[in-house]
Amino acid sequence: MQFSKKALTVALASTLAVSGLAFNNASAENQDKNEIRNVIFLIGDGMGPTYTTGYRALKDDPKTPMMEDTAFDKHLVGMQSTYSSDEKESITDSAAAATSMSAGIKTYNGAIAVDMEKQDVKTVLEQAKEDGKSTGLVATSQINHATPAAFGSHDESRENYNEIANDYYDDMIDGKHKVDVLLGGGTSYFVRKDRDITKEFKKDGYSYVTSKKEMLNDKNEQILGLFAPKGLDKKIDRPAEQPSLKEMTNSALDRLNKNDKGFFLMVEGSQIDWAGHDNDVVAAMSDMEDFEQAYQSAIEFAKKDKHTLVIATADHSTGGMAMGRDGEYQWDPLAIKAAKKTPDFIAKEIAEGAPVEETLKKYIDLELTPEEVQSVKDAKEKSGDVLEIDNAIEKIFDLRTGTGWTTDGHTGEDVTVYAYGPGMENFTGKIDNTDTAKEIFAILKESKSAIQK
Amino acid sequence: MQFSKKALTVALASTLAVSGLAFNNASAENQDKNEIRNVIFLIGDGMGPTYTTGYRALKDDPKTPMMEDTAFDKHLVGMQSTYSSDEKESITDSAAAATSMSAGIKTYNGAIAVDMEKQDVKTVLEQAKEDGKSTGLVATSQINHATPAAFGSHDESRENYNEIANDYYDDMIDGKHKVDVLLGGGTSYFVRKDRDITKEFKKDGYSYVTSKKEMLNDKNEQILGLFAPKGLDKKIDRPAEQPSLKEMTNSALDRLNKNDKGFFLMVEGSQIDWAGHDNDVVAAMSDMEDFEQAYQSAIEFAKKDKHTLVIATADHSTGGMAMGRDGEYQWDPLAIKAAKKTPDFIAKEIAEGAPVEETLKKYIDLELTPEEVQSVKDAKEKSGDVLEIDNAIEKIFDLRTGTGWTTDGHTGEDVTVYAYGPGMENFTGKIDNTDTAKEIFAILKESKSAIQK
Repeated sequence: MQFSKKALTVALASTLAVSGLAFNNASAENQDKNEIRNVIFLIGDGMGPTYTTGYRALKDDPKTPMMEDTAFDKHLVGMQSTYSSDEKESITDSAAAATSMSAGIKTYNGAIAVDMEKQDVKTVLEQAKEDGKSTGLVATSQINHATPAAFGSHDESRENYNEIANDYYDDMIDGKHKVDVLLGGGTSYFVRKDRDITKEFKKDGYSYVTSKKEMLNDKNEQILGLFAPKGLDKKIDRPAEQPSLKEMTNSALDRLNKNDKGFFLMVEGSQIDWAGHDNDVVAAMSDMEDFEQAYQSAIEFAKKDKHTLVIATADHSTGGMAMGRDGEYQWDPLAIKAAKKTPDFIAKEIAEGAPVEETLKKYIDLELTPEEVQSVKDAKEKSGDVLEIDNAIEKIFDLRTGTGWTTDGHTGEDVTVYAYGPGMENFTGKIDNTDTAKEIFAILKESKSAIQK
Repeated sequence: MQFSKKALTVALASTLAVSGLAFNNASAENQDKNEIRNVIFLIGDGMGPTYTTGYRALKDDPKTPMMEDTAFDKHLVGMQSTYSSDEKESITDSAAAATSMSAGIKTYNGAIAVDMEKQDVKTVLEQAKEDGKSTGLVATSQINHATPAAFGSHDESRENYNEIANDYYDDMIDGKHKVDVLLGGGTSYFVRKDRDITKEFKKDGYSYVTSKKEMLNDKNEQILGLFAPKGLDKKIDRPAEQPSLKEMTNSALDRLNKNDKGFFLMVEGSQIDWAGHDNDVVAAMSDMEDFEQAYQSAIEFAKKDKHTLVIATADHSTGGMAMGRDGEYQWDPLAIKAAKKTPDFIAKEIAEGAPVEETLKKYIDLELTPEEVQSVKDAKEKSGDVLEIDNAIEKIFDLRTGTGWTTDGHTGEDVTVYAYGPGMENFTGKIDNTDTAKEIFAILKESKSAIQK
């Protein structure tokens, strides 16, 4: 394999990465004369090909004969392979995949920007900070969760949430904190008995905000925003005080864009994956929409700015989600459109005592059959467990839409890659997730010398 | 949606199709100065993203740290959506998808090159023949099966196998038969009590062959080759007298290439899909290899010829196949490599009386557990039915590899698109299966005027 030799330099690797599509090099020279100042890297966690296709079908206008493209479709440039080099698990987890995309190496599942020998590996965010750029991490999970963690910290295990949170404050580059903008969830890891990292950040000039309103009213270039103890709620369940992924992205862009040397921003739609683990098609599509809206904001910024490269991809797929089950040739998103809240949200209310039929009616704008209502009643009566009730509600959506699942874990198929702006031609064709980081490193190098001129 | 208006001309549509990747037009002008004489269109039936990714993992050299690219990977240019406009089934069948790719329209499931009103629609193969090019259809199914049928015939139903076979002989363009080279299976539809179409073709100067040897020894430019009553056997089950998809493709190319005006050839890896319907990962990978080897032949031809466009894609995915099941983060192709025959082949021998343990041992180069052997014995004892025994053997491979399935039908996710040679830039990014035909029509138009000059 062409990338198999560790001795390959980043420069050589980036040439090889596009060798499959020779015409791109030529076009790059012709078109992309704008130097790249900013890189926005968006990751839809768990967003495999079925998620992007299903989302298109969901958003389709049934009045037109053809299906409308999503915001992503317009910029599809290729696909990337995602496997990890874990000795026991060839299907990647989010930590190993994020390390591949942040540092350009294959590693074991659970690794946060460390290699197979648990040694730290430099990330593109760290490189950007070294080069004098501003940096940001935005996620709907806790901000110290695997994906953002693998850009802004190093740890032998993704499970070391406190240590990762500490890293964001303690790890310095040229005497400065590594990440200027941190927006997501995670108060329970930052405000602890042994340490209050939010106070430490404030002492060093960061704003600390915990609601959408506070975030929108704050203009500081450095900010820590934590809007939930762990992850935020799913888009359709989200209370008014939690910002959307788009609002966090815009808030980050406003701050980061003040640096003349440019910025690197990673934005994660974290809970597409969590929905996949739960085999919940309603939640998956809820957070696909959240992610698409953030992506659209990034594209709009790049269109105006003209010096911004936007890349979007997934780290892996989740759940073995399929549009099609049990021999039926039909995937119908109607029931998803009818859901006002996720099955998790509805199940919780029912488990806490809300009446089954009324609660289902309140949150699902569908004429449910007596059998469907009964299946949820049975789940409540059998155990009363939220999980059982949740599964029963999810099953209604699975059967109505025609959605199948094979696992509550991840799956190994390639994922789509989208790119827009100067440098986009470096991500075309079939690449590996390590190529993504290698290409960003090469672009940062180019950006640095362009800015120095 | 941009393609929603029927009034859109093909020319306009082809401009729009690449609008997402503006740089391609520029590069096309720079690079692809060779006029296009020939188009080879390869369709991996059912070859969704999990099949292409799984096949890469299967072919990986475990001695190198990175996974080797497949022959397809080098030419990945984008993905296409596959949905049909069937009133009851949004997930396409092979007939509707092939009609979209041959004629550029959406239609109902089962339609063979007819529209929603069951009216004939012109196919790219017919256009090529009108333009004086030679034409060919190659498949491992019966050659009158849905996919090839939708290029070379018209019928309101894919089930009308006899009528479709008749069409290949009866439908003329400018007094000539539509398809010069027909290679696949299907004697039971061509040699019938009411009619022997093979004799009719012979009378008109076609060669008629029924074995690999006969095919290789024949040099006639027009040929009908039928190597099985219906479909050929799967690659790893195939007897010596049946040609491989690669051998049929090469044989077709040798004949078609004698026409100065060029040719259009459609090659189908038909039974990737049949394996998917059967939820048989061994057979799926067997015929992925068959298809890859045919694809390599097409690419080699195009590399030498320099006037040949090669496009490869799938019509849909099948089975909801997933690399990953039951929460395990592992997909291990080792067991697939150990299979010398498909579960179908092995099950047939066992159902016919061959001893279970010895037969499994003979065809599967693995130390099977007593439980695995017992599961097949149980299936034999319970019903003796081939299907039950087949399912039991398939389950061994599913569990050993970590392969999951959600359906015995099709699934709706986008499929990969590969392109090589002059004109390849017209297939980049996210396209719809109807765009594929529209682009080929536009290329044929260009090719015609270039040849006339």
